[in-house]
Order: sequence, then C-alpha cells, then structure tokens
Amino acid sequence: MSERLRVGQVGLGYWGKNLVRNFDDLADLTWLCDGNEALLGDFAHRYPDVRTTADVEEMLAAADVEAVVIATPVPTHYPLARRALEAGKHVFVEKPPAMRAAEMDELVALAEERGLVLMPGHLLLYHPAVHKLKELVDSGELGDVLCVYGNRQNLGKIRKDENALWSLGVHDLSVILYLIGEEIVEATAHGHAFLNEGVEDVVFCYLRFASGKIAHMHLSWLDPHKMRRLTVVGRDKMAVFDDMELERKITIYDKAPEQPSDSYGEWRTRTGDIFSPKLPNTEPLKLECQHFIRLVQEGWDGREMRDGLEVVRALELLTESLSG
Amino acid sequence: MSERLRVGQVGLGYWGKNLVRNFDDLADLTWLCDGNEALLGDFAHRYPDVRTTADVEEMLAAADVEAVVIATPVPTHYPLARRALEAGKHVFVEKPPAMRAAEMDELVALAEERGLVLMPGHLLLYHPAVHKLKELVDSGELGDVLCVYGNRQNLGKIRKDENALWSLGVHDLSVILYLIGEEIVEATAHGHAFLNEGVEDVVFCYLRFASGKIAHMHLSWLDPHKMRRLTVVGRDKMAVFDDMELERKITIYDKAPEQPSDSYGEWRTRTGDIFSPKLPNTEPLKLECQHFIRLVQEGWDGREMRDGLEVVRALELLTESLSG
Amino acid sequence: MSERLRVGQVGLGYWGKNLVRNFDDLADLTWLCDGNEALLGDFAHRYPDVRTTADVEEMLAAADVEAVVIATPVPTHYPLARRALEAGKHVFVEKPPAMRAAEMDELVALAEERGLVLMPGHLLLYHPAVHKLKELVDSGELGDVLCVYGNRQNLGKIRKDENALWSLGVHDLSVILYLIGEEIVEATAHGHAFLNEGVEDVVFCYLRFASGKIAHMHLSWLDPHKMRRLTVVGRDKMAVFDDMELERKITIYDKAPEQPSDSYGEWRTRTGDIFSPKLPNTEPLKLECQHFIRLVQEGWDGREMRDGLEVVRALELLTESLSG
Amino acid sequence: MSERLRVGQVGLGYWGKNLVRNFDDLADLTWLCDGNEALLGDFAHRYPDVRTTADVEEMLAAADVEAVVIATPVPTHYPLARRALEAGKHVFVEKPPAMRAAEMDELVALAEERGLVLMPGHLLLYHPAVHKLKELVDSGELGDVLCVYGNRQNLGKIRKDENALWSLGVHDLSVILYLIGEEIVEATAHGHAFLNEGVEDVVFCYLRFASGKIAHMHLSWLDPHKMRRLTVVGRDKMAVFDDMELERKITIYDKAPEQPSDSYGEWRTRTGDIFSPKLPNTEPLKLECQHFIRLVQEGWDGREMRDGLEVVRALELLTESLSG
Repeated sequence: MSERLRVGQVGLGYWGKNLVRNFDDLADLTWLCDGNEALLGDFAHRYPDVRTTADVEEMLAAADVEAVVIATPVPTHYPLARRALEAGKHVFVEKPPAMRAAEMDELVALAEERGLVLMPGHLLLYHPAVHKLKELVDSGELGDVLCVYGNRQNLGKIRKDENALWSLGVHDLSVILYLIGEEIVEATAHGHAFLNEGVEDVVFCYLRFASGKIAHMHLSWLDPHKMRRLTVVGRDKMAVFDDMELERKITIYDKAPEQPSDSYGEWRTRTGDIFSPKLPNTEPLKLECQHFIRLVQEGWDGREMRDGLEVVRALELLTESLSG
Repeated sequence: MSERLRVGQVGLGYWGKNLVRNFDDLADLTWLCDGNEALLGDFAHRYPDVRTTADVEEMLAAADVEAVVIATPVPTHYPLARRALEAGKHVFVEKPPAMRAAEMDELVALAEERGLVLMPGHLLLYHPAVHKLKELVDSGELGDVLCVYGNRQNLGKIRKDENALWSLGVHDLSVILYLIGEEIVEATAHGHAFLNEGVEDVVFCYLRFASGKIAHMHLSWLDPHKMRRLTVVGRDKMAVFDDMELERKITIYDKAPEQPSDSYGEWRTRTGDIFSPKLPNTEPLKLECQHFIRLVQEGWDGREMRDGLEVVRALELLTESLSG
Repeated sequence: MSERLRVGQVGLGYWGKNLVRNFDDLADLTWLCDGNEALLGDFAHRYPDVRTTADVEEMLAAADVEAVVIATPVPTHYPLARRALEAGKHVFVEKPPAMRAAEMDELVALAEERGLVLMPGHLLLYHPAVHKLKELVDSGELGDVLCVYGNRQNLGKIRKDENALWSLGVHDLSVILYLIGEEIVEATAHGHAFLNEGVEDVVFCYLRFASGKIAHMHLSWLDPHKMRRLTVVGRDKMAVFDDMELERKITIYDKAPEQPSDSYGEWRTRTGDIFSPKLPNTEPLKLECQHFIRLVQEGWDGREMRDGLEVVRALELLTESLSG
Repeated sequence: MSERLRVGQVGLGYWGKNLVRNFDDLADLTWLCDGNEALLGDFAHRYPDVRTTADVEEMLAAADVEAVVIATPVPTHYPLARRALEAGKHVFVEKPPAMRAAEMDELVALAEERGLVLMPGHLLLYHPAVHKLKELVDSGELGDVLCVYGNRQNLGKIRKDENALWSLGVHDLSVILYLIGEEIVEATAHGHAFLNEGVEDVVFCYLRFASGKIAHMHLSWLDPHKMRRLTVVGRDKMAVFDDMELERKITIYDKAPEQPSDSYGEWRTRTGDIFSPKLPNTEPLKLECQHFIRLVQEGWDGREMRDGLEVVRALELLTESLSG
C-alpha cells in the first residue's frame, strides 16, 4: 500500500517522544496534542509540518487523522481510547488500555462494532527475545511448559499513581499470557505499600492455568538487584530471557529432571549444553509501530485487542487478591 | 569444663558422616547407630574405639551416652527425639525436628520437664554470613527491615518424601524468623507437584509479620539457575547473602528510596557504596556442634528449641496454605 | 570570569559532534569547520548563530576565535595544532596530538613560546573512576604500587590507519602514566597484524619504571570478551576500574601478600573486605571541556601538555619495539 | 590385559596423595617412598599391603616395581627420573620433569634407548575442556587459530623456589603447545620479583610460532582477580576455557571480524551464537593415570615425552628472556 497512514498522537511525555519519532518515520504524522503548551511548542518547532493542539477534540475532529496514538497517563487511557473509537479512529494505546476489565470490554466491543483497530502497546511482545521464547515453546523444544516466572526489580520510576503490579507487572504478564496461552484458573497476589500509602511497591503474584502450568512474578521497586528477567521451565529444557544482559538476552539450558534407569524411580537433574542464540538487532518499538500500521492497512482479526483484554482481566483478578 | 561430652549418634548417611567427624573431634563419641549393617561396619573400622549397634534402644540404654545426635530421615526425627528425651539424653536433632507443630510442642515440653537440651540443627544460623546479617539488622545499619526474601533454586537432591517447602524452605525460614524475630500474622504458600505426585517441587511462600514486615521464598528443584540467596531490604540499606559466591558472601548496598527536596514528594532510588565485608573462615557445622556442646555443659534458656518450634509452626501454616 | 571563551572547532565527525555539544553549552562557539560540505550544512542548520567554513585558514584568521578545538583524523592533528598555535590560538586537540615525539616537542615549544594553552584530549583523565584511582594511589591506601595493567579488548571500530596500540592503547597509557608518574626505563611491545597489512590488531605492551614498578597492556580488536579494565596492584590493597560495570566501576580489594608469623617466611595471600565506592555522576567529557576553558581563562603551568608529551614518547618507544 | 601394572611412587605430599589414591585404584601399588617418616607411617597404616621405604634406591631395586611415579619437589624430578630409567623402570613424573632442556634431552634419550615410557604429568592435557578445545581447533570449527592467550592469576601457593613462569605458566604452556602444535620462533618474557628476591611473581610471556600464530600468558600471584582461563581466537570463531566456571567451562563465541559487502573493505566484528557444550564429568587425574598405564601396557610412540621436551624447551627460552 503506497499511501501512508495519517496519524495523530496525544501525549508527548517521556515515552510519547519515542512514539512520535517512530510514527513520523513510518507514517504520515499529522497532529500532535498535549495539555502542556511549552512541550507542544517544542514539538511544533521540531515538526513544522505537523499541526498541534491542546484540545484532543480538535484533533479527533480532523479529517486528516485516521489513527490515534495515545501515550498519556494511565488513568486517561480508557476515556481517550473510547472517544477516539467513537470518532471513528483506529487506536494504538499504551498499556494498560484500561484499569478495569469492564472498561476494556467496552473498548473491544466498540472497536468490533465500528470495525476499527484497537491495539494495546505491549512492547515486549515485539521484542526478538520474546519471539524466540514463543518459538521455543510452540516448537516443543522446551517440552511441556511447567512454570514461567518473572523478576522485575529495582527498575523504572517509582510511581505514586500506579502500583508495582500495574506499572511493572503489566510487562511480564503480557508475555506470560502470550507464552502460555491458556485460561487462568487461579490468581493470587500479595504485597505491601511501603512508600506511598495504598500503592504497593513490592508485589508477588501467583497464577495457575487450566492445564496445571503455573506462573509467578516478583515485582519490586525496593531491591538491591536490577533485574528484568523471565524464566521458562520446560519439561525437557529451560530458557531465560535476561534483558540486563548485553549479549545473552536468551539462554537455553538443556537441563531437566530425569529418572535414570539405575535410580530406582528417583529424580535427578540432568545438565547439558547451554546456548545463547544470536537475536536480530531490530528495535522492538519500531516493530510495534509497524505492526499497528499493518493491522490498519491490511485488516486484522482482533487478536491483539483480545490478548490485551486478557491482560487487563488478569491485572484485575490480581488486584482483587492484593486488596483482599 | 575439662570433661568431654559423651555423645551417641543415630544416622550415618551423607550428612550424618559430617556430624560424626565433628563430634569425634569436639566431644567423646561413644556410640554409633544405623540400620544399615554395612555402613555400620565401615564406621566401626574407621572409629575402632566407638561402640556400634543397629538397635537404637541399646544405645539409649547405655550409661556412657549423655547426648544423642539424630541424623536420620526426617519422618523419624520426632519419634527418635522423643525416645532420647524420655531416656534422659540431651538431643541434637537435624532439621526439622518434627513434621507437625503439636509434635514439636511435645518435644519442647518434654525437654523443659526433664531439664534437657533439645537443639534443632538449623545449620545456617551458625553461618558467619547470617551472623553478619543479624548484626546489620540489629544495629540498625539497614534501617527498618521492610522485606526479606530467599531464593533457593536448582539445588540439592530432589526428594520423594519431602517437598521443596520442607526440604529447601526450612533453611531460609529459620534465617528469616531469626532476622525478623516477630510473630507471623499471615502465611500463604502456592506451588505444584510436577515430578512426584503430592510432593511439591516448586513452591512460593509469602509471610507477613506483626509490624508489617514481609518475607517471601522462591523454592524450586526445577530451575536453570543455581541460587542460594537471601536478600534483606532495609529502609536505609539493603544486604544480600549469596552462598554461591566465593568471595562476596555478603554484600551491603547503600541504596534506598528517598524523597529529594527538589522532587515534590516523589520517591527516587538513591545509590551509594557497595561493600562486601570479610567474613571469618569458620566452618558453620563446627560452630553448630560446639554450640550444642556448650549448651549442654554450661546450661541454657531454651531459646534454640523455642526458635525451632516457631520454624515448625511456620512450616505447618505454609503447608496448610499449600494444600488448601 | 564573566566573558565566555570564543571557540572554533575543526572536525565534526562522530566524536566532534560531542565536543560541539559541550563547547556550545560551556563557551561561546563561534566557528565550525569541516571539509564535508553536507555535514557542515547540517551543523549550520542546527547552530544558526555559528559561522561555518570548509577552509580552516579562514577560521584561524577570524578575530572571534580565541581557542581552537581539533577533532579531525589523527594524522592531521599535528599540522592543524601547529597552524593554530602559530595563529595565536589556544588549542584543545584530540588524542594523540602527534604521531611522533619530535612533533609533540615542537608543539610544546611553540605553546610555551607563545604563552598558549595546548591541551590533549585524554578523556579518561577526567573520568571520576580515574580520579578515584589516583586518590587511592596518592593517599597511600593501596601501599606502594607494584603493577598496573590494562585490558582493552573487543571494543571500538577496527581501524585501517591506526593500530591497536595507538587506537586503544593511548587510553590506558595516559592513565598508567598519570597514576605512576615516573620515568619509563623499559618499553617493549609485541603484536601482530592479522586483518590489515601493517596495522597490528593484537598488541601486548610491557613497561618498567624507574622505581621498579611495572605496567602491562593487552590491546586487541580480536577477542570474545568485551573488556575495558584497569587493575592496580598495590603492596597493601588492589583496585580495579572496570568500565563495563554499571554500578561497580571501581572496586577496592583489601587483598595482599603477607608473611604470617607462623609461616616461617612463606608468603600467603590475605583476603579482606571488597568495596565499591559511589562515584559522582558527572560526564567526563563535560569535565574535560570545562578544564580546558579554565586553563585558558585562569592560566596554567603546562602540566597537561607535558603529560601529553610523555604519552606520545611512550607510544613512540612502544612502536619502535613493536616494529623492531 | 589382565595383569595390573606394579607401581612404586616416590613423593607423598599434597599432590602425591592424589596420585597414590588413583594408582591404588587403577594399578597394583606395591611401594611408597618418602623422606618424611611420619608421613610414610600414615600411608603404611592406610595401605597395609604396600611396602614403604625412605630410601628410593631400595624401591628402585625391587623386582615388583615396573613403573615409578615421581611426585617430589621440582628440583629432584630430573635426578629421580634419570635413576628410575637407569634402573629399567617406566616413569610418570610430575611437571616439569626437568628444569633445563639439556636434562630433558638426556631423559628422552635414555627412555628411547631403554625402550621405557617417560610421561610428564601435564594434567590439563587430560581435562575434557582441553580435549574440546583441541577438537574445535583440529576440526577447523574455529577457522585458522590466530592467537591463544592464558590468564592464570591469584591462584595457588606463592612459591619461594619456583617463579610464576615455572609454577603457573607450565600449565598454560603445555596446552598452548598442544593446541598450536608448531615450532616457536620467538619467545619473550617480562616480569618482576616483588616478594622473594629473584623469584618472579608477575610474568608476561609472548610467543610467536612458525606460521605467524601468537600466544600470550599473564601469570601472577599478585592479583585481585582469581583467573584460570585460556582464550583461543580463531579466524571464524573464538573459544574460552574458564576453569573458574562451574557450568560453562567451555564457551564458543560465533564472533569474528568480517568485511561486509557494504563496508568498502572496512573490518567489522560479527557477533553470533554463544554456546557452552556439556563436557564429560571424568576426573582429569584419573584419565591421566589410566593413560600412563595404557602407554606402558600397550606400547607407545614417545609423543607425550617429546611434547614434554617442547614444554621444557619453551620454559628455558622464556627463562632466558626473563633474566636477560
């Protein structure tokens, strides 16, 4: 398709800036919107061909906006996404798109009804290392997946308005659900708010899936170790995605419990080769933006939106357990 | 005291051998007992001055046994400890001394009634790194302790008769209770038995204490990473005991959340010096055996026994949660 | 001093860009010069108040240039620095300022004669970790320095016109000479050119100093390990600057050989605390640029220039050994 | 062959003990000899069927000694090996078998003349990781070998009678010569004796081989890093044997310089998969002892002896350079 998608973006903060750079590169960026006038002025200066406004309604009313990119604070995601869909725009919305499953349900229904794309920005799903994990799981190389667990500790900005579950956990959760692809039958979370009243800064989550697979997340802003790691324990092999590594983002351990013939039914741990495959150098954010454009231009089946709904549902279940 | 304590030991397996070596060195080892005749023969050959028997009652009846060391399989700890106390012997018993709190209560009552020492073998409590952690906590150097968590993964023999909670968790739990020294107000465990029906090989435990401190344990035989690590998150500093390190068993991070004056109430993470103090080279097992002998010879207040009771109580609470 | 130094820069490539950014920030950047017209155009666009030229003589003739920054390819450093000094300008020149000691001698003589500052851009000398090393050495905390060695492997662009000694070694050499501060009495280099005829890509250098201290550099583009590390072995303690570490750039090991009283004159290795002090977050390049401006504005004694001469002399000695 | 080789061993110190254990297991150990009577008594007690003597001539005269194992201090290796060969015994002698090439020449001539086996104990040549390296080199998987270098730092007992070259370097040298298998055309060593007058404790060695391959060794007792590592840089891949690693003794990096078609002749570094193959768990010392027994019982071509001669020759060349 030769025509470039005409995109308007609302939200120009830290992360918004990266989205602007990519959509300016890959699409026809026509509008930018932000309540901060000074920030808006900077962008107007740097992107002289783009129209700017502090009023999102003005942007949504514009004929030269086919798709809207939403990169505002989390609590505004749902109302803005809703308004954009109502205005007939395709929507790319940063994660999480809503803070309650019922809201996400509404967005999904609205998108389906209008035939619009609604894609939540689960960036990790476009990371080459996550694609590699998915390939390892789906090809059966790891054997049956038994347990997936994430460690996301001592990273990112400590937030006042979002707890560690929503701020950190949303990343791992999107990948865990993507890899396991089953219904959650048990979701438990424990944690504590040490710094900001009511905002948990240390959270532990346990998930059980229909087939007996389990998952766990250790999420914390209060930790000496910087960790950004996901471990997949398969019945035949184990794989680790460690995003703090420079050259070994993925490591596959040919390690598994076995019952050698001379062990009389006792389990031992077999250890074998350790392998870190070379991954492509592509930037996940660019792949994500390209993916959104392709969905709009080539049609879609709604999978990304429904997967995003599952993430919000899981977050809601865990939030209920955490508060309970 | 110039007289050496006369010790008899039951159980000569893998770990028992280490206890024999130490008690032979530090005390007057008079009796050895094991049901395996071949094994008993080997020890008889190596320790010609020690009497051997396959009948524990024979050893308990002997006048030249003041204290009994129990290093048998876990399910036999309680009945053997009980018999030894009833026979008027001081008891050193491998961990856990009992598999139910009610049994441990009985042992404690019996020891108190007879004025005997009953010391559970929580080896880690005699590790110089744990002493260092305790000193850091008690001196206030870490500030208020917020969270303690343990990772014990991919280590040790996969057992058929004991799950990961009892086999691996007992180590971390003894240290967590020792460091925090408060009453548990919430204890939750989740996990799954992948290899042996009914024997959980992956377990996650969450504990909350009276003052709001929390603790967590990740226990697993199915893991690519070999981990034996305990992390203490204090309000002012954080400390890690990593038993897989050769030279940095303890590392103290001068790292903590702070609200700088220019941050308008926002929390940031301060990072500072990182320090690994030199620890004494003493063997924990030797210190543990010496400690037991000293308790018998110099009198005691029962602390070790009551601490051991708390460990069994916590294990029981977690087991109930795990099964629930 | 309230007046900002008026600076012209020649060379706008990869590294030049960083210098432009800093001098624009810290001084009054008046002229930019580069033979690449397209590049020059970009800078003209971004810095509309700065005059641009492809002719360095035009810049050197300008009255509003007090100091010249030289960030061109290495072989042009010497002639450009010479011309700038002859034109009465203070000079900041990227390392190495000359490829032969005789040329550097000329530059130093010229600067002294004209009363101008000539500062070579040995960036590492402005790194907080190197300041820390110097402080550890000078305060005597490490005891007598015995040996300093550098590992710089698998890093940076493989160059066709500069071998590993000149391209990689110049960094470590400037620091080694700074730390030891003694005359070199022996300089030997060995290596091989595997990729580009006559351009050694693997080089080992050995230096001996007047007092018996020694130094070594392992320099290589052909290596599996990414290393950027300098180790200082003192008689009482040892220190490591590892620039690949995120949080432990400097580590001090309280480790040294000792003759315990019970060892009958035998040496053993004592191990003690391991410590990584927090370093300031300041950008070395900014500190370097500020330093140059301060030298020009507040007067100087020529130390940086004479230290730069020693680096070129050492490189020349090592080059002779390498070719010999 | 059903008959077990009848072996006498001289030297029962730290390392000798390990040889005794293995030869007792694999052969018919008939005699033990040591000047230390107390030590001899201990062994007599533990090995009641073995004859003991403090007089090596008595052992060499015994008819029930076919092969002699020499594990005495280095300076005695040559005279003892010579006497044993003269007495018609096969000889296994710890490394280095002689401290001068002329002495080693004599031993080799004597062994050839008498048709006896003379095997130096270069333990690393029996390490599964070294076999793996050899296989990688010989199969061409690494491409042409360009450079091999060893790091052996902060390890082992600081010796008064042997410098770091002879004590540490002999290990790496035996492997380097084994892997490269070419004639040395240049051998240079630099170093310094900081602790014991005349005994270098820090040594750097450079070797060049007939085809242009190079090698380097960094040997030191004075170092903060414990290192026992050998790196092989091939034209197509690189491999590392790191003996301080528990699970990744060997790592193969698919990393090499390349000239991509779009680079106009410029070299870049390609990075690819990283792989640590599982190695067999066999104990190198056991393999070494078995190898010696097999050579005696099944005949040999003298390769091990001639390789040992090359090691001594290289040590002699390096020693001359070091002293020069």
